[in-house]
Amino acid sequence: MGRCSLLLLLLLIAFLTPGAANPVSPSLRAPSSLPWSTSFRSRPTITLKYSIRYIQQKVDHFGFNIDRTFKQRYLIADNYWKEDGGSILFYTGNEGDIIWFCNNTGFMWDIAEEMKAMLVFAEHRYYGESLPFGADSFSDSRHLNFLTTEQALADFAKLIRYLKRTIPGARNQPVIALGGSYGGMLAAWFRMKYPHLVVGALASSAPIWQFNDLVPCDIFMKIVTTDFSQSGPNCSESIRRSWDAINRLAKKGPGLRWLSEALHLCTPLTKSQDVQRLKDWISETWVNVAMVDYPYESNFLQPLPAWPVKVVCQYFKYSNVPDTVMVQNIFQALNVYYNYSGQAKCLNVSETATSSLGVLGWSYQACTEMVMPTCSDGVDDMFEPHSWNMKEYSDDCFKQWGVRPRPSWIPTMYGGKNISSHTNIIFSNGELDPWSGGGRGEAETLRYRK
Amino acid sequence: MGRCSLLLLLLLIAFLTPGAANPVSPSLRAPSSLPWSTSFRSRPTITLKYSIRYIQQKVDHFGFNIDRTFKQRYLIADNYWKEDGGSILFYTGNEGDIIWFCNNTGFMWDIAEEMKAMLVFAEHRYYGESLPFGADSFSDSRHLNFLTTEQALADFAKLIRYLKRTIPGARNQPVIALGGSYGGMLAAWFRMKYPHLVVGALASSAPIWQFNDLVPCDIFMKIVTTDFSQSGPNCSESIRRSWDAINRLAKKGPGLRWLSEALHLCTPLTKSQDVQRLKDWISETWVNVAMVDYPYESNFLQPLPAWPVKVVCQYFKYSNVPDTVMVQNIFQALNVYYNYSGQAKCLNVSETATSSLGVLGWSYQACTEMVMPTCSDGVDDMFEPHSWNMKEYSDDCFKQWGVRPRPSWIPTMYGGKNISSHTNIIFSNGELDPWSGGGRGEAETLRYRK
Repeated sequence: MGRCSLLLLLLLIAFLTPGAANPVSPSLRAPSSLPWSTSFRSRPTITLKYSIRYIQQKVDHFGFNIDRTFKQRYLIADNYWKEDGGSILFYTGNEGDIIWFCNNTGFMWDIAEEMKAMLVFAEHRYYGESLPFGADSFSDSRHLNFLTTEQALADFAKLIRYLKRTIPGARNQPVIALGGSYGGMLAAWFRMKYPHLVVGALASSAPIWQFNDLVPCDIFMKIVTTDFSQSGPNCSESIRRSWDAINRLAKKGPGLRWLSEALHLCTPLTKSQDVQRLKDWISETWVNVAMVDYPYESNFLQPLPAWPVKVVCQYFKYSNVPDTVMVQNIFQALNVYYNYSGQAKCLNVSETATSSLGVLGWSYQACTEMVMPTCSDGVDDMFEPHSWNMKEYSDDCFKQWGVRPRPSWIPTMYGGKNISSHTNIIFSNGELDPWSGGGRGEAETLRYRK
Repeated sequence: MGRCSLLLLLLLIAFLTPGAANPVSPSLRAPSSLPWSTSFRSRPTITLKYSIRYIQQKVDHFGFNIDRTFKQRYLIADNYWKEDGGSILFYTGNEGDIIWFCNNTGFMWDIAEEMKAMLVFAEHRYYGESLPFGADSFSDSRHLNFLTTEQALADFAKLIRYLKRTIPGARNQPVIALGGSYGGMLAAWFRMKYPHLVVGALASSAPIWQFNDLVPCDIFMKIVTTDFSQSGPNCSESIRRSWDAINRLAKKGPGLRWLSEALHLCTPLTKSQDVQRLKDWISETWVNVAMVDYPYESNFLQPLPAWPVKVVCQYFKYSNVPDTVMVQNIFQALNVYYNYSGQAKCLNVSETATSSLGVLGWSYQACTEMVMPTCSDGVDDMFEPHSWNMKEYSDDCFKQWGVRPRPSWIPTMYGGKNISSHTNIIFSNGELDPWSGGGRGEAETLRYRK
């Protein structure tokens, strides 16, 4: 795929993607030994007890020619469920294995007892085990044709009706949709389209406006940059300069080998295209760190210290350093993300997604409905300049999947910025979250900040 | 198709179906010569000026594998349109030629000047000229796969966005959806699903609850019966007895010939099944008369006098009459509907639909999403008893179209009775309208009436 769309796909995959934790290497220093401290504590560990269930769903809710069904997986935790007065908290699963999301959505578990809640985690079709055509689900655009947000929301609707019909006492209890990231968009859109089934939605970090021209395409990378510039002196400036440092080194005779060794890469760089892949991977790493810049230790994308951006920025205090020093600093900083546990043997440029996330499925969605333009200019952000080129993006999608994206469809379907007639939707956007630029709350705030 | 579903299909086709006005016969007396008068006047004739336009629409808004487009027809009348302060009244076209609906939706023309309104009449896909696959559109279930309410609403959404983008001054003007009957359901559902595109909807005579078990299946026929019983002494009772009168006569030696002549049928009855068809056709006629029981002369389904049910009931004053007299009375009453103009030569049992209505398309819709159970018991209504049998209905649909209906889908999608979170939708149901039983307003009233 072309440069422009490759970046986008990487970003989207990075949405919730753990970079892979790689095999042990004693030669790598774990940044956990850094003298960095925080007053925040890790979240307490909760024992998660749930049962795994399945429901038969129509492959096509919006057409009658194909009457085939498939098994959608969902999880139910009803330890705290009370028929009288209890709520049903319904997680609108996103692009990955639902068990992984279940294990990483602490908020629902935190409030379950207080709300006498039944927790339901519904897997999104085409992810995890919920494959409409089994192993053939991704074989071509014909089999992928039913991977849309509308079909996914219809699955959720049918599941809720089924649960209300079959679980004693559930019929009249309120259902609340919850989701994060893409799942947050789904939670919001579900309340918009099926308000008869959910009394409200909590849409966490949901960039519902990161479509078409609703927000500037550079907003995401700008916020990442702001996160870094506010987390340490010279931090974003150093990163901005780091790309040319890599470029200059790569052009020298033994440059690729030197870079490979300095960065402890599992697979050495051998050709010039590898350098671009390297830089994309590093860019994505900084994006990921910004996305999980929590004030406590966490283990969502990777095991990470509290305030990981600040920890990373410890290595970018000086922007005017020789190129070789810059690369050594990059390595130390990468280490924060890929080796907080001290177990990594080497760093793997080609692995950025865990198998819990459905890379193929999301790539198709990004090539159809979920077209979220991103760009950078290297001036207002710390990344190399990349413009947004819709034609090139569309051509790349056609090459890869045989389909063309419809970038204006999501705003047509879900209202774009004109969503004031809907009620009971909480859009929760942390100020540090790069996706807040395309989210409802923070985008508003940003407008005043400028 | 089986008896049970045949009745339903006839009813639905009758939704807005003119019975055909047939060639002249001096032997038929025009009931306009009856000494019946009314204080109401016909609606004034308005000259309708509009332009015919087309927009390219995706055949499949909800899938990307088929990227084909088709031309959707729409009409625009902008004589009274004012860019400053004018509204856009958007007719959500239903199951027929949009020009016919345009010519029969006087209300929009009536209020155009006052509202400085632009009138837009959008044709529903698979009807009129808006055929996604041209002449092949109805060839099989594969080609019919895109005939759903969701696709139709998506067409409307794209059209409104296009109009706002291209018509000077339209961008910020409010759009209001209007529709009657099935089009009324679409208007309401459009506001529910796309509140960002229309500020409100006027859903006239829209039986949004005539689905699944939301209202009793006999409600429609009961209201028709009430209309007749309140329009003349012994009227509904006479009609209730008329079926057996026909049955008894049909069993006699020359019964079929006698019936054919007494009713001036264009094609004589020759076999016993013809008798059932005859009774279905007569039932449908009474239903149609009830649907257009306007207080003024009208020409919607047929040229009709004011209060046509009362005029029909003039012939059903006596329920205890010999069978032959009963049939002669039926003929006079049929004459009100089929020969008010005095031009009919004979009555045609096989023709009940004008070519303006898409019989094929509606039959498919009734076999997929638009499953609206109806039944009668002959006790609380004046019709012969017919139960509702979903299995038989489904089997008939499978035989005819190769698809099976999904009777609970419409309530899942559009909320059933749980629609209180929506705003700015006016459900207008006349008390005499048989569809009011499945409509929001009158169903509510009915609940208190019982």
